[in-house]
Amino acid sequence: MALSNERLIGKMAMLGVLDESYLPEIEKLGWKYCVGKAGSMDSQKVVAAIETAAKSENIIQTGIYRETHSLYHAIMEAFHGVTRGQVQLGTVLRTVGLRFIVVRGNPYEKKEEGDWVAVALYGTIGAPVKGLEHEAIGLGINHI
Amino acid sequence: MALSNERLIGKMAMLGVLDESYLPEIEKLGWKYCVGKAGSMDSQKVVAAIETAAKSENIIQTGIYRETHSLYHAIMEAFHGVTRGQVQLGTVLRTVGLRFIVVRGNPYEKKEEGDWVAVALYGTIGAPVKGLEHEAIGLGINHI
Amino acid sequence: MALSNERLIGKMAMLGVLDESYLPEIEKLGWKYCVGKAGSMDSQKVVAAIETAAKSENIIQTGIYRETHSLYHAIMEAFHGVTRGQVQLGTVLRTVGLRFIVVRGNPYEKKEEGDWVAVALYGTIGAPVKGLEHEAIGLGINHI
Amino acid sequence: MALSNERLIGKMAMLGVLDESYLPEIEKLGWKYCVGKAGSMDSQKVVAAIETAAKSENIIQTGIYRETHSLYHAIMEAFHGVTRGQVQLGTVLRTVGLRFIVVRGNPYEKKEEGDWVAVALYGTIGAPVKGLEHEAIGLGINHI
Amino acid sequence: MALSNERLIGKMAMLGVLDESYLPEIEKLGWKYCVGKAGSMDSQKVVAAIETAAKSENIIQTGIYRETHSLYHAIMEAFHGVTRGQVQLGTVLRTVGLRFIVVRGNPYEKKEEGDWVAVALYGTIGAPVKGLEHEAIGLGINHI
Amino acid sequence: MALSNERLIGKMAMLGVLDESYLPEIEKLGWKYCVGKAGSMDSQKVVAAIETAAKSENIIQTGIYRETHSLYHAIMEAFHGVTRGQVQLGTVLRTVGLRFIVVRGNPYEKKEEGDWVAVALYGTIGAPVKGLEHEAIGLGINHI
Repeated sequence: MALSNERLIGKMAMLGVLDESYLPEIEKLGWKYCVGKAGSMDSQKVVAAIETAAKSENIIQTGIYRETHSLYHAIMEAFHGVTRGQVQLGTVLRTVGLRFIVVRGNPYEKKEEGDWVAVALYGTIGAPVKGLEHEAIGLGINHI
Repeated sequence: MALSNERLIGKMAMLGVLDESYLPEIEKLGWKYCVGKAGSMDSQKVVAAIETAAKSENIIQTGIYRETHSLYHAIMEAFHGVTRGQVQLGTVLRTVGLRFIVVRGNPYEKKEEGDWVAVALYGTIGAPVKGLEHEAIGLGINHI
Repeated sequence: MALSNERLIGKMAMLGVLDESYLPEIEKLGWKYCVGKAGSMDSQKVVAAIETAAKSENIIQTGIYRETHSLYHAIMEAFHGVTRGQVQLGTVLRTVGLRFIVVRGNPYEKKEEGDWVAVALYGTIGAPVKGLEHEAIGLGINHI
Repeated sequence: MALSNERLIGKMAMLGVLDESYLPEIEKLGWKYCVGKAGSMDSQKVVAAIETAAKSENIIQTGIYRETHSLYHAIMEAFHGVTRGQVQLGTVLRTVGLRFIVVRGNPYEKKEEGDWVAVALYGTIGAPVKGLEHEAIGLGINHI
Repeated sequence: MALSNERLIGKMAMLGVLDESYLPEIEKLGWKYCVGKAGSMDSQKVVAAIETAAKSENIIQTGIYRETHSLYHAIMEAFHGVTRGQVQLGTVLRTVGLRFIVVRGNPYEKKEEGDWVAVALYGTIGAPVKGLEHEAIGLGINHI
Repeated sequence: MALSNERLIGKMAMLGVLDESYLPEIEKLGWKYCVGKAGSMDSQKVVAAIETAAKSENIIQTGIYRETHSLYHAIMEAFHGVTRGQVQLGTVLRTVGLRFIVVRGNPYEKKEEGDWVAVALYGTIGAPVKGLEHEAIGLGINHI
């Protein structure tokens, strides 16, 4: 059941979202991934941007709810890291500017573990005024 | 007030905790930092391990409460990313094995912004059985 | 003070919202109740639909704040079961389609316990796309 | 993708935990399930009791982490309904006496949706004094 | 239904816990109240101390669960103000030293609103080291 | 590091917001403060009203993000006391009418502790119907 040290999906997703030059490492493993940006005071727009990218780039299958369900919870978990307490943006007068990555692969040694999804977020959070912000990071991982 | 692209304290802390070979980059900026490990089902032990390391390595001043207060909230925010919903470990039957880094520096272009602290966590969270776990990440940033 | 096995208000409310054929059992006890439906991405609309039904069908008295206060908290508690973590719908890009029941009665053996209110919810929660959803349930109980 | 009206796993799990006479309906579908009881001020003991039952009765496979992961999150979601705000028991001076059911099956019309798990909880929550309690309910659903 | 300006139970409870010289104002209204102190890293001990005081000084009736239920939720709400995010103390390595007051009375102009309970808390929260702490306040109000 | 009994910033802020006649006590200490009112179902408007007042009355410096950051977290902490569980207003169908005070000063015996900010809130929370409301209080304290 152990995690494989060469296939730590969370670490690779986070490195990939922090530094684009790392993305070829993810490709080498034969894993699917997509990257994008989302900036908004509306938390639902950030969720939608990530879901749309993951579907249009075929990271998850559109016609199967279990895949959407898995991704949704991974996004929400990553959002906890970014928002740190309340999964809210505009309603508490703050906004985000985020890069995101969605990675799909099996990080475990056993084949039976199947595919997992990792959503990593990196960017800024703060008042809706340029400069009044600091960095924020989130990572969500789920079995698909 | 803008963040300096060369001194993104959250990104550097996260890269440093994910990959030790990145630590010299933090030193080059003249910033203080310390790294360590903490594994436990007792959430308070993880908090204590980080606080103790940061104090014994003089990242924060022991005799000034405002510094302890700043670090404590940064730790709690990083914990939100790791725990994603409830800042609890053993009480919901899960355990963590984490590497941590505490970095102190000014990530803004203006000197007047003074020192900030970043706490980055990376490791695993899961059932108290080896292998029944996935990765988790957290980042907390606060002004000192 | 013990709960009466024949008057378990939470169980009866839940059975009533899951299966209409159970409603006469609630009537037999001489308890007041109302049922309805609410579907929305706006969480406040769901709260409003339940409050309006309970008031217009005289489950609670409109002119007494303590009754509204009691119902409101029972609704919010039921919402925790449906939302499981964040009492939010549209702001995290999800919608619900719910049946609800509000039951008023004394589930305890002692008369002095007076009236209590139970709010039970049953339906689906998911993405704002038909089929991308699973079931959800909530129950809130409060003294009136 | 739609839910099948004859195989609403959440409704069936909840009916089964409320009323034992309903259990044969679940068996008819060929679904696996297990029932049990857990009473404690220690929230981790309740989680452990459900996990242990589900594993020893082969509802989920012990050797595959993704199955444990799926069950764990379903348990935590069901706990939200029972605890309604803080997933805590003894630390906020309250205790539970719960019946639980774990059901595994596919509630969707499409075969490709695969297995899902539903955890339903019903019982009482209150002060650690007999009688000072009311009923509580929770339901968690996850893809396996 | 309006609140009476002369009987603002929350304001009076808070003033009473901040400044003992204000307590006779509460007595003048013929309201019951009790005051006490509780200091601990164990959140349940703080809850227990308030409940015990309120029962032994007959602010609430011991034999009626609805009164205990009402008080419990008022205490938990007051705790939210003190803990600001997670209703936890020792598990996140912090401790409190609190004065508390429990006041029972009708703050509304209408007699039909009956009795309400207000729990006000004032003191310090911080690390389990003298001086590493700041002030904290909480107020919970519920109908009895 | 100890708090000074003559300069308990949280107590003074709370007394000041409960009773205007107390404000000269704060002035005597040479501390800056501002008071105001905010009533809304939009939580972000309440946050904005407090931030705007604190900036326009020079309690915090507009050009330094660390000061805005400190105030923001103090406001959010005070909001936890008012909202007691979910930092939400309109989305859960409730509204507030609040008086607020922002106080800046050093409540500790040591000069090195520097300035801290206290945000105290007092008013009513309830349904968006006059009279259907009770009192609420919140206090947030942060180092600047």
